[in-house]
Amino acid sequence: MGEVAANIGAVRAAVAEAVAAGAQLVVAPELATSGYVFADEAEARAAALRRDDPRWEAISADLPEGVVAVVGYSEDAGDRVYNSAAVLARSGRLGDYRKSHLWGEESRFFAPGDAAGAIFDTPVGRLGVAICYDNEFPEVPRRLALAGAEVLALPVNWPLVDRPAGERAPETIQAMAAARSSRLATVIADRHGSERGVAWTGGTAIIDDDGWIAAAASGGAGLVVATLRLRHPFDKSLPPYNDLFRDRRPDLYA
Amino acid sequence: MGEVAANIGAVRAAVAEAVAAGAQLVVAPELATSGYVFADEAEARAAALRRDDPRWEAISADLPEGVVAVVGYSEDAGDRVYNSAAVLARSGRLGDYRKSHLWGEESRFFAPGDAAGAIFDTPVGRLGVAICYDNEFPEVPRRLALAGAEVLALPVNWPLVDRPAGERAPETIQAMAAARSSRLATVIADRHGSERGVAWTGGTAIIDDDGWIAAAASGGAGLVVATLRLRHPFDKSLPPYNDLFRDRRPDLYA
Repeated sequence: MGEVAANIGAVRAAVAEAVAAGAQLVVAPELATSGYVFADEAEARAAALRRDDPRWEAISADLPEGVVAVVGYSEDAGDRVYNSAAVLARSGRLGDYRKSHLWGEESRFFAPGDAAGAIFDTPVGRLGVAICYDNEFPEVPRRLALAGAEVLALPVNWPLVDRPAGERAPETIQAMAAARSSRLATVIADRHGSERGVAWTGGTAIIDDDGWIAAAASGGAGLVVATLRLRHPFDKSLPPYNDLFRDRRPDLYA
Repeated sequence: MGEVAANIGAVRAAVAEAVAAGAQLVVAPELATSGYVFADEAEARAAALRRDDPRWEAISADLPEGVVAVVGYSEDAGDRVYNSAAVLARSGRLGDYRKSHLWGEESRFFAPGDAAGAIFDTPVGRLGVAICYDNEFPEVPRRLALAGAEVLALPVNWPLVDRPAGERAPETIQAMAAARSSRLATVIADRHGSERGVAWTGGTAIIDDDGWIAAAASGGAGLVVATLRLRHPFDKSLPPYNDLFRDRRPDLYA
């Protein structure tokens, strides 16, 4: 919580571990560099990074050519602070996304972004990025898939909520459903353990484009790696009669 | 398959059993009066019922005052045949919904409807109705919930598809996610067993407005009853900071 230098070090170590395991797309949790449970806006700002902070360069320099990393951070944007995700490659910064659906007390610390998820052209393809609560709005993953996202990177911090025995976290169920509805593989990186009395779900998982769990964190912590064999991002066909996108009736959804 | 008189008898017996168990809303599967695996349009038409067919009166007459039944049927609409659901009460017919997202060979037999789910004011409240594949388009349950549906009646015929060991049917996961995203309880009535070589999922289940399974058919068959304690249909609040609907950013979803 708030130990930015140590957190950047932890992100770099995790990225290095993922790269060593062969990962081409690496996703770190929401607010990975800052911690989550801020007491006030001043804390969120104190742990924030500007986009041009030189400390980002160390993370980019760790990335081999062709590898993309998505890292959640508290973004110092001058007069405003955002809950953001940086999209990084060896060449540097490819872009940033600012969370637009703020959860809980976040609205005390962060301004909302002005896009419902975003797409970035990267060395690993057209990458959708959303953050945590964004994905609980079915419109968000749907919109990104319709815009041609090939995979969705989803940094999250899921507070642990009650669920019936034997059930997955509800947010996981929602991500599985969204993945299946739009054939959009989804890479979730969650916080784990607890922080200032908030227990986390540890829902880190990789969901394939049929909506099934390809890999999930054992006990909620640690590196999760999977190889996703993706179809073309505009192939939503269900032969011989159906197609997940062409079967839509957008004229009827108003 | 095609034995309309026997199927109406089975629907009446099932409705009577549900009413005896205290049900106020009774949902029968998609195409309950006709069978599903038609060889051609002539079969779908031969097993079809007109809305004014006098055989509907027997089902309505079985319903106590205040009870609503939703029954899937093949609808003879003169020049066209639809995959429809009738909404019935003791006073008679409250309305009909025609499936607008057709699955598989259905497009050989049925014309598509011109609404993406529909809402009916009934003695049990504002009732959303969609049919099977309709609900795999996240726009459909979302639209119905935003329009004030208090519960969703979902007649389905889910062909059994491959799924990883230990997983629920993917359509169930999608319905759970949709229920949670919009706080929309969902009553699913599925076909079971097999018909003309097609195996069915037997996914009959009642999902509460948190997205959890309140009751499900043991072995896929038989009557499933649950008491749903619903919040007000426009109460989507997540105190103290959030609200599933007010947190939407529809200006960003285009």
